Amino acid sequence: MEVSQFFEDYEIGHVWITTGRTITETDIVVHAGHSGDYYPHHMDAEWCKTQPFGQRIAHGTMTFAIGIGMSAGEINPRAFSYGYDRLRFPRPVRIGDTLRTRVTVSAKTPEPKRPGLGRVVETKEVLNQRDEVVLYCEHILMVECREAPVPNSDSEDI
Amino acid sequence: MEVSQFFEDYEIGHVWITTGRTITETDIVVHAGHSGDYYPHHMDAEWCKTQPFGQRIAHGTMTFAIGIGMSAGEINPRAFSYGYDRLRFPRPVRIGDTLRTRVTVSAKTPEPKRPGLGRVVETKEVLNQRDEVVLYCEHILMVECREAPVPNSDSEDI
Amino acid sequence: MEVSQFFEDYEIGHVWITTGRTITETDIVVHAGHSGDYYPHHMDAEWCKTQPFGQRIAHGTMTFAIGIGMSAGEINPRAFSYGYDRLRFPRPVRIGDTLRTRVTVSAKTPEPKRPGLGRVVETKEVLNQRDEVVLYCEHILMVECREAPVPNSDSEDI
Amino acid sequence: MEVSQFFEDYEIGHVWITTGRTITETDIVVHAGHSGDYYPHHMDAEWCKTQPFGQRIAHGTMTFAIGIGMSAGEINPRAFSYGYDRLRFPRPVRIGDTLRTRVTVSAKTPEPKRPGLGRVVETKEVLNQRDEVVLYCEHILMVECREAPVPNSDSEDI
Amino acid sequence: MEVSQFFEDYEIGHVWITTGRTITETDIVVHAGHSGDYYPHHMDAEWCKTQPFGQRIAHGTMTFAIGIGMSAGEINPRAFSYGYDRLRFPRPVRIGDTLRTRVTVSAKTPEPKRPGLGRVVETKEVLNQRDEVVLYCEHILMVECREAPVPNSDSEDI
Amino acid sequence: MEVSQFFEDYEIGHVWITTGRTITETDIVVHAGHSGDYYPHHMDAEWCKTQPFGQRIAHGTMTFAIGIGMSAGEINPRAFSYGYDRLRFPRPVRIGDTLRTRVTVSAKTPEPKRPGLGRVVETKEVLNQRDEVVLYCEHILMVECREAPVPNSDSEDI
Repeated sequence: MEVSQFFEDYEIGHVWITTGRTITETDIVVHAGHSGDYYPHHMDAEWCKTQPFGQRIAHGTMTFAIGIGMSAGEINPRAFSYGYDRLRFPRPVRIGDTLRTRVTVSAKTPEPKRPGLGRVVETKEVLNQRDEVVLYCEHILMVECREAPVPNSDSEDI
Repeated sequence: MEVSQFFEDYEIGHVWITTGRTITETDIVVHAGHSGDYYPHHMDAEWCKTQPFGQRIAHGTMTFAIGIGMSAGEINPRAFSYGYDRLRFPRPVRIGDTLRTRVTVSAKTPEPKRPGLGRVVETKEVLNQRDEVVLYCEHILMVECREAPVPNSDSEDI
Repeated sequence: MEVSQFFEDYEIGHVWITTGRTITETDIVVHAGHSGDYYPHHMDAEWCKTQPFGQRIAHGTMTFAIGIGMSAGEINPRAFSYGYDRLRFPRPVRIGDTLRTRVTVSAKTPEPKRPGLGRVVETKEVLNQRDEVVLYCEHILMVECREAPVPNSDSEDI
Repeated sequence: MEVSQFFEDYEIGHVWITTGRTITETDIVVHAGHSGDYYPHHMDAEWCKTQPFGQRIAHGTMTFAIGIGMSAGEINPRAFSYGYDRLRFPRPVRIGDTLRTRVTVSAKTPEPKRPGLGRVVETKEVLNQRDEVVLYCEHILMVECREAPVPNSDSEDI
Repeated sequence: MEVSQFFEDYEIGHVWITTGRTITETDIVVHAGHSGDYYPHHMDAEWCKTQPFGQRIAHGTMTFAIGIGMSAGEINPRAFSYGYDRLRFPRPVRIGDTLRTRVTVSAKTPEPKRPGLGRVVETKEVLNQRDEVVLYCEHILMVECREAPVPNSDSEDI
Repeated sequence: MEVSQFFEDYEIGHVWITTGRTITETDIVVHAGHSGDYYPHHMDAEWCKTQPFGQRIAHGTMTFAIGIGMSAGEINPRAFSYGYDRLRFPRPVRIGDTLRTRVTVSAKTPEPKRPGLGRVVETKEVLNQRDEVVLYCEHILMVECREAPVPNSDSEDI
């Protein structure tokens, strides 16, 4: 569903949380095949028994893909994704963990170099069934302003 | 294959590049199903025709998973992944694009709060067949030092 | 997202339509593998050239799974699915067709044998990019009544 | 394998049953990704523990796709699928259940509006390992008659 | 379907052929992910353009899995697979090729070391749409004899 | 990674072994769907309980695809695969088994009919977590000679 939301409409501190999804052995096998990452941390149950973490753990790129995917509900046609900062994996994800993503509007700043746009940061935290954070990142959105400021310069960046 | 490499062994400026992989419609359909992100940008060819980008484009989380996955060759038992900074998607990835990942050792810093470890940054750039950067990120590794410094404090961070 | 809706809240004639999804060769190959139906209508491009329909066509069970899946957005905790009537496939679905599902509340009837429940029929039509109906069915929901009628009998049926 | 069978060849009461297939967590994860239906009934093991059914259950559309797929063995070039009536799901399907499909020729009627064709109903019941019916439907086939009746009208229907 | 067939029932020279299956880009991507073989011959369309074969080609292990899978129709409870000899890939398989498998009973020999069993060789040839052989192998079956010979020794082999 | 190796560089008796991969229920379900082989040995847990092997076992073609895939690391641009001899499956592979592939250079012979090439045999054995051989085969490679012999005849064979 499309839900149009301008820069002015984002409220710092607004929080919502997704429904849950249990991570399965299937997800790990599918992700290995999709990404090409067959490291034994994800694929070799015997080797994992000899390691501190004791059992197969999810790929970080998978927790990211599923965590972000769970929060892909409504589409805001006024926004586009600029990138992510400070992507961290504070705790491992194991087979059988159930994840949800908590989204918090954590920052809003005008974007002087891009007339008519503002920068919104949505902090996304993926939580497991014990409410522990297993993934943290700051998703940067560029969002149209309802009333565009006077343009004044060119942008340049990665 | 395991190839042991200590903090001291990483050389700033060292660059290597992976073999290539062509992104297919299959990858996009599989990633939608894996991540649960069915946004029309990835799934609706008719709608995409009405947009500036003109055709279905890859999920950012997929370019990340495949780009990082392509660089998952040798395993360094002396290192673990700490996270990623400044993940950006400067250009869209389209069906039929062929991607490779270029890995550059771009920074090394001691990690005073984690005795025996140093921080290594590998800049990872995913390139298409025209050598354009489609994904940029800074992968942060924590790597064992061959000669551990004197420990002196506790760590705290995300 | 959960959106609670009682029997009384359904309005005959209410219509909504999903976003679109382009059917790919991948979907057909995945569905064959998932269902175990490898009939040449779906799998053998050479044989299909000799047939009136001229090219591979989607499995009916796939159009059903995807068509219903596209309409699985909000969850109504007051309703459960009872079944489907009159499932029909008026036109074939081909690789490259873009489908959307149109949902119409088409009937509401009390359910005397199931105290506190009413029967709601949602007609679901899957449309292609030319707005032609490729799948038609009547989805029967059992929905809680806000004010439960006096119970009076046991239920029995398939 | 093709096995040609005309309308006259179908015998009311003829029954056959397929080999079995165990429903796995993989099937459910694959079906969620294929259909786009990530309802917590199928995906969230923690939430399911709080519900009467107690554990993740299969999508109805998956039981249908696999149940019908299991019965897709011989191809009858004299018949085509017209649709399904009274599709019902009397009992839930759980991970680890083993399903088979029982096919019974349950009705045959001439099809006056479609010269040369007759309507055959195959009742398809999907059974679990305790021989309980988990899916019931009436599959309607249009089958060529060996001796075509005199044509007399046009057809019209969905 | 089970069809019981004893050693004595196999007839040298008996031939049958399967229905066809078109090899898709999806099959190659799925096989790479399933097997972990991401060689550029299968995955890198740009590199393939610089090679004599000019385009991505199927994995040999995939042609084998699909070619043998297509011939897995009837189950003979009197036989088990002993292995394969002389597995060859005379021509490459490309995306869009349509394959069928031709099965020929090519040899029968008593198996003196395994009382009650005989060895049957089914030559399996996978053909493309131009009837060219793309895979050749000799499938060795051990099959029960209807009348078991007098046992006389132990078996030993790989 | 490419590592160029001529016929002369192969050393009889050279052995290496891959990292491990645990075979999952997912692999079996995916392989059934990929190959089209739904035999109850792989798919029907209830039936398997009544058989000597007691539980679902992997498809031979899957153990082959994964076993060979695990050994697909470095690419030798001087070699191509000619085929496989004596493919055997001495023990079943069960869900939860962890496999590795051991590769031994077991034979080298000049190839008089193919000037400039030599034949190298790599014996590939797939081992489970108890170091039992579950798959044995002889992989035949055609490898360029560093110093090509005088050409003298045409080749012919399958």
